[in-house]
Amino acid sequence: MTAKFDFTLHKTDGAARRGTMHTLHGDIRTPAFMPVGTVGTVKALYLEQVKEAGADIILGNVYHLMLRPGAERVARLGGLHKFIGWDGPILTDSGGFQVMSLSQIRKITEEGATFQSHIDGTKHHLSPERSMEIQRLLGSTIHMQLDECIAFPHERKDAERAMQLSLRWAKRSREAFGDQPGRGCFGIVQGGTDAGLREESAKGLQQISFHGYAIGGLAVGEGQDLMLSTLDVTLPHLPLDQPRYLMGVGTPEDILESVARGVDMLDCVMPTRSGRHGQAFTSFGRLNLRNAIHAEDLRPLDASIDHPALNSYSRAYLHHLVRSGEILGMMLMSWANIAYYQHLMQGIRQAIDEGRFEAFRSETRARWAAGELPSAT
Amino acid sequence: MTAKFDFTLHKTDGAARRGTMHTLHGDIRTPAFMPVGTVGTVKALYLEQVKEAGADIILGNVYHLMLRPGAERVARLGGLHKFIGWDGPILTDSGGFQVMSLSQIRKITEEGATFQSHIDGTKHHLSPERSMEIQRLLGSTIHMQLDECIAFPHERKDAERAMQLSLRWAKRSREAFGDQPGRGCFGIVQGGTDAGLREESAKGLQQISFHGYAIGGLAVGEGQDLMLSTLDVTLPHLPLDQPRYLMGVGTPEDILESVARGVDMLDCVMPTRSGRHGQAFTSFGRLNLRNAIHAEDLRPLDASIDHPALNSYSRAYLHHLVRSGEILGMMLMSWANIAYYQHLMQGIRQAIDEGRFEAFRSETRARWAAGELPSAT
Repeated sequence: MTAKFDFTLHKTDGAARRGTMHTLHGDIRTPAFMPVGTVGTVKALYLEQVKEAGADIILGNVYHLMLRPGAERVARLGGLHKFIGWDGPILTDSGGFQVMSLSQIRKITEEGATFQSHIDGTKHHLSPERSMEIQRLLGSTIHMQLDECIAFPHERKDAERAMQLSLRWAKRSREAFGDQPGRGCFGIVQGGTDAGLREESAKGLQQISFHGYAIGGLAVGEGQDLMLSTLDVTLPHLPLDQPRYLMGVGTPEDILESVARGVDMLDCVMPTRSGRHGQAFTSFGRLNLRNAIHAEDLRPLDASIDHPALNSYSRAYLHHLVRSGEILGMMLMSWANIAYYQHLMQGIRQAIDEGRFEAFRSETRARWAAGELPSAT
Repeated sequence: MTAKFDFTLHKTDGAARRGTMHTLHGDIRTPAFMPVGTVGTVKALYLEQVKEAGADIILGNVYHLMLRPGAERVARLGGLHKFIGWDGPILTDSGGFQVMSLSQIRKITEEGATFQSHIDGTKHHLSPERSMEIQRLLGSTIHMQLDECIAFPHERKDAERAMQLSLRWAKRSREAFGDQPGRGCFGIVQGGTDAGLREESAKGLQQISFHGYAIGGLAVGEGQDLMLSTLDVTLPHLPLDQPRYLMGVGTPEDILESVARGVDMLDCVMPTRSGRHGQAFTSFGRLNLRNAIHAEDLRPLDASIDHPALNSYSRAYLHHLVRSGEILGMMLMSWANIAYYQHLMQGIRQAIDEGRFEAFRSETRARWAAGELPSAT
């Protein structure tokens, strides 16, 4: 274990990048998809399954964990790693996004955000300093600055105001983080879909100096085209030798296109949330296991992938479990989706290593578009 | 694999019995606790975990499976074993109990039971012949006769009428079962809590001749004393050389007392259902993980038992998961309870093998009663 937090860029292939992040809690192979462990569990999965599927790092949410069980409590229990039983890297978001999306009543001032818990209505406060303190109490590997997220659509002037506030919070967050060997602190680029604001945000963050840069405020309903065009006008303003993290993204298609533009890290609840609702991601596109077409289909979800969640349970059984609302259905579908996402990331990393990312990208897209070949049975 | 269904009684210790049931799908060590896989899943568990915890046999429910996915469909898919991925013995109940407890409108005639599905209100029919046909379509290892279950409390005349009908259905069930090498058919003793009716039922079933005898109509609210006293007046009328199965029982205390009276097999949803609601069974009694007392307790559920579900997750984490309504909480608690139940059965079997069942029984009861020693931490 190194006590230094750094990023090694091994290879680029077009704009796509292959790297390794070194942290106190181990290495992260990039491009990396980070499963989301909101309240200290990647929903319906054992963490051993998450690790074994190929995930090097998982996410925890400050907003959820500060409300329950509470950051001080987690610290007393030895930190988040010990609490949940995960010894690899953990990235914690700062709470900014959930204050916007989940809390019932919120007030944003220069000092910070005051909001009511979505669980019990109790009042809470989150400043840049408190968010960083919470992340330190949790023992997170990668700390995110507190930012103000705004809903989409929005006026340019609102995006600008929130971006400027986020920049000032970035400075306070970075100072509060201080120097924690082997751990990193990331700034978050905001600015809505406006190229000028994104550039200003990216440059302002670099003046503060972070260990990595996230692109926030996307995947909030703007659609893939606008998301990718915003990436296109943002990424050129970020340093080449540091990791870039696209927050809250996304579908396998989104991941492929984002990596093609130079994104190194992504996270999303989609594989687990969709899994709990019966949707599977496969190498030939999506399957809705609620659909009656699967009721007597003995094929597994995706026989082409050597993973038990994908190649050993029949669609007929999964259909039955999903239709019956059984917990095992949610377990198997979530597991299959995490496995597929990690399989995709492994394919992406290998393709970049071998200098054939463009071919991988077009082949993968073509397989998704073509759908499944007719069954031989 | 033998194609013969039989029961070997290895040893008795007082009234407690140690045996092995040989079936087409493998051996069952008795006394056996059978986890319940109602709709084709032992709720919130992987079947590998059920097997690894020590269960030789699981249960499936005719009532649930006939409604969804349907017996003919399961047969087309290769049978229940293949459908759910379990190659050991499966016992299927006949549907009688659920017709009483779950269906919305039901009519019992000499011919059979007509009822409305609790899922979608559709009308269904279950005769002794149809129940046995369904169990054959499912490919069950142990088939149960169709019986009429009545609620508790009840009048003696109602218990007598239902017992006599169940006897006539027993004859029709046994004939419909016919001869299926390696599989068995069990009769079910009814008669409420009346000693005379129980004796008449037990003797009537033996005239028909089954591979084993179940005691039904208990654990329906009569309380442990009445349940055990009913066992006391029933078991002496059952053959010593065949297995006795007490249906739907129960708590660890119920299991210990039933085995002490000569019961060989039991099943109950309690370990999984209680687990989903945050209750754990341990060698020192029960724990309610919802209770705030566990919030900062780093001890596992039961460090004295060498099983990952019991000795590797902290109560603090389980408390957090249970309070948060997380699926992983249900998974871990159900797993722990199944592991504890199987641990108890293993202890029971070993104690009988070694001729010290009475000591085991009193020690186990004393540990449950004493509760947990104060923590050293």
